Amino acid sequence: MQITHDGKLEIGGCRVTDLAKDFGTPLYIMDEELIRTKCREIKASLAKNYPKTFVAYASKAFCNLAIYRLVIEESLGVDVCSGGELFTALEAGVPREGILFHGNCKTPQEIEMGVRVNVGRFVIDNLNELDLVSKAARKFRKRVHIQIRLNPGVEACTHDYIKTGMVDSKFGLGIADGQAMKGVEQALASEYLILEGIHSHIGSQIFNIEPYILTTRLLMDFMGDVKEKYGYTLNEINLGGGFGIKYKTTDTPLSLDEFSKKVSQVVRESCHTQNLDLPCIMVEPGRYIVGEAGTTLYTVYSIKDIPEIRKYIVVDGGMSENPRVSLYQAEYEALLANRASENPTETVSVAGKHCEEGDMLVTDIKLPKIKVGDLLAVFTTGAYHYSMASNYNRYPRPAVVFVKSGLADIVVERESYADLIAHDRIPAALAMTDAKKVCPLR
Amino acid sequence: MQITHDGKLEIGGCRVTDLAKDFGTPLYIMDEELIRTKCREIKASLAKNYPKTFVAYASKAFCNLAIYRLVIEESLGVDVCSGGELFTALEAGVPREGILFHGNCKTPQEIEMGVRVNVGRFVIDNLNELDLVSKAARKFRKRVHIQIRLNPGVEACTHDYIKTGMVDSKFGLGIADGQAMKGVEQALASEYLILEGIHSHIGSQIFNIEPYILTTRLLMDFMGDVKEKYGYTLNEINLGGGFGIKYKTTDTPLSLDEFSKKVSQVVRESCHTQNLDLPCIMVEPGRYIVGEAGTTLYTVYSIKDIPEIRKYIVVDGGMSENPRVSLYQAEYEALLANRASENPTETVSVAGKHCEEGDMLVTDIKLPKIKVGDLLAVFTTGAYHYSMASNYNRYPRPAVVFVKSGLADIVVERESYADLIAHDRIPAALAMTDAKKVCPLR
Repeated sequence: MQITHDGKLEIGGCRVTDLAKDFGTPLYIMDEELIRTKCREIKASLAKNYPKTFVAYASKAFCNLAIYRLVIEESLGVDVCSGGELFTALEAGVPREGILFHGNCKTPQEIEMGVRVNVGRFVIDNLNELDLVSKAARKFRKRVHIQIRLNPGVEACTHDYIKTGMVDSKFGLGIADGQAMKGVEQALASEYLILEGIHSHIGSQIFNIEPYILTTRLLMDFMGDVKEKYGYTLNEINLGGGFGIKYKTTDTPLSLDEFSKKVSQVVRESCHTQNLDLPCIMVEPGRYIVGEAGTTLYTVYSIKDIPEIRKYIVVDGGMSENPRVSLYQAEYEALLANRASENPTETVSVAGKHCEEGDMLVTDIKLPKIKVGDLLAVFTTGAYHYSMASNYNRYPRPAVVFVKSGLADIVVERESYADLIAHDRIPAALAMTDAKKVCPLR
Repeated sequence: MQITHDGKLEIGGCRVTDLAKDFGTPLYIMDEELIRTKCREIKASLAKNYPKTFVAYASKAFCNLAIYRLVIEESLGVDVCSGGELFTALEAGVPREGILFHGNCKTPQEIEMGVRVNVGRFVIDNLNELDLVSKAARKFRKRVHIQIRLNPGVEACTHDYIKTGMVDSKFGLGIADGQAMKGVEQALASEYLILEGIHSHIGSQIFNIEPYILTTRLLMDFMGDVKEKYGYTLNEINLGGGFGIKYKTTDTPLSLDEFSKKVSQVVRESCHTQNLDLPCIMVEPGRYIVGEAGTTLYTVYSIKDIPEIRKYIVVDGGMSENPRVSLYQAEYEALLANRASENPTETVSVAGKHCEEGDMLVTDIKLPKIKVGDLLAVFTTGAYHYSMASNYNRYPRPAVVFVKSGLADIVVERESYADLIAHDRIPAALAMTDAKKVCPLR
């Protein structure tokens, strides 16, 4: 990403002014090379420190055919957590053995789908699911490789974490309350299940290595307990994702090298102490892979200056394609993309065009003096934007383009008005309506 | 809505157990008769108290072809706030003169669309839009009927409201800071614009009549000022929507009769004092019309009991088809729909199946002992549920059915997995991927 000599923002060698002309706004722009770099960085930092590692892309962050092709080119596996994500991964040609199937409430249909296509791992969330997967495996005469999701009692948020004896969570089986060990026992008793490892995911947008270290210790201790109790050695420790990224310049992501070094050290020491073989260390980054590669491009269509109160600039999008502000009070950096070298001179707030007062994109940001027709780039919108987008107010969802070496490729087509009514049906009784009954306004 | 002798929840004469079998879950069920009743109630309560009234359905609450047909059968107008809603209304056959076109950031394309099709009223949000509408009107040689959205400095929420000299809002033109009068002046100066009235919308889910009364006074005073300053009489006072509905049994919606009586009294008095003709009183209910008519039906697929902490029951939906819990911390009532006459015996929390800890539907609700396969009905989900639904985690959006007199009609088809990838494209370079590069898990 850079600014051209004539002051245009350029991403992947493409001027955003050209992208706006070619594809319209709002537009999701994804920097392909940056996604690839992130894939390589995380693989390399793990491989440098430990012999057996596996990285799966957590596709809920940004899911479509193209991103699956890209991450498999980069030799990552993928983590899916619904039948729809699994379907998309299969259509994209993701090798089945590289798929981890997550989710805290897989339906019987989803479970059968996963068993039939031989996903690499079922990540089992609860005892009921363990039973359903075992039954489906029997039905299709397949052996199913599983990990069990544990609840280690560690909860991490951005800069902090808590360790409780027993966390109140809808995910996983508690270690402390004995549910996790019960799961292991049940899995080992099934002739159709192959228990490969244990999994844990402790939070999102984490900037701190300590909770991962603590979790690794707890999971390794659990592996030792399983060995001691059942003489069974688990092959895999899956630490999930949650690596924080830079939304604001003040954000301070953790060092992946340090993460890899410290986590692998804990695993080695624990194996030594408990006389275990070294397991494969697995991670499942989603936001980390795609978040910073994404930029959303908007056109400013309205400016409202309320003297001594606030100056609003209003763009042609909002909470339908960026629900994270309303959902999580997320904060973003933005840039006037068509006059990117101009100095910021006034503090404004960027509002969306939805009919809700809370539909804001950025509150209080310094920008050059904005005019109607200007282009605004909002950064770090690659994760949980397109994937969470809605048609609220019947806005067609924006296109997504990959940019690289000066070329832009559509990876998701913009929706049309016709798409919006494609699933609408008018029951026969309502089709007969005499529209002339409406009281006219004039 | 009632419970049958054998304990099944029945809506519009249809057993929800049958609906689940016929249409699957999750399922949005809309009680057609209740929607019609609401349309009639609000029209009647206004008409009883005042000679000239107009009710427009605020379609952002629930937008599709069928609901437009239904509300025009009930002789309501419609309020749209985007090109997509306008398109849908036109496709449904809504008479153009009954359409009010809202929105705080209409694009030039949306404005031209509204002008070309002769919408009944443009509700103008800001001075820039006033200019654009005037230009589009000139371009198409049409006279455009408008209302101007005012910011009266009244902000209402459920049980309270505030009156400030000047509210910080992205909507409307301030009365106090003179912007509103500037808008009137600009509108009167345009030979293509016909200024019909003024509009205000002060909030959502309002339980209290006072802020409406106050707003009516402020708007009527403004009408008097316009008359005095320009000798021009405005024909319409549009009070927007915001009427609260019953999500929880403890919610206390305002009385529409009282609203109509008091508001019309203020309008009459004000006309008398200021020597104005009686204007048309307009309202734009959305949630009020469709909210209570909606029920979402889920299947329970997982139960997780964390001893002494919490019992989770997990259903086959969540924040993708009910984003209001995550967005607004909304609270709902729910019922075990297939054993609806059983007494509640335990306190549980209803979790969704999305990969987020915050994806909950109901926290701490008393229900009978739940089993996997049970059906759960969550009430009052007719407004801002289907219209705000996303494909997060690539879940196909649920079907919507209208039920009436024992018959159920699809009004929105359930999405398929194929629909999820319909807009996905694989760029040529990525189509060549050698998938065998992925490191296998086994």
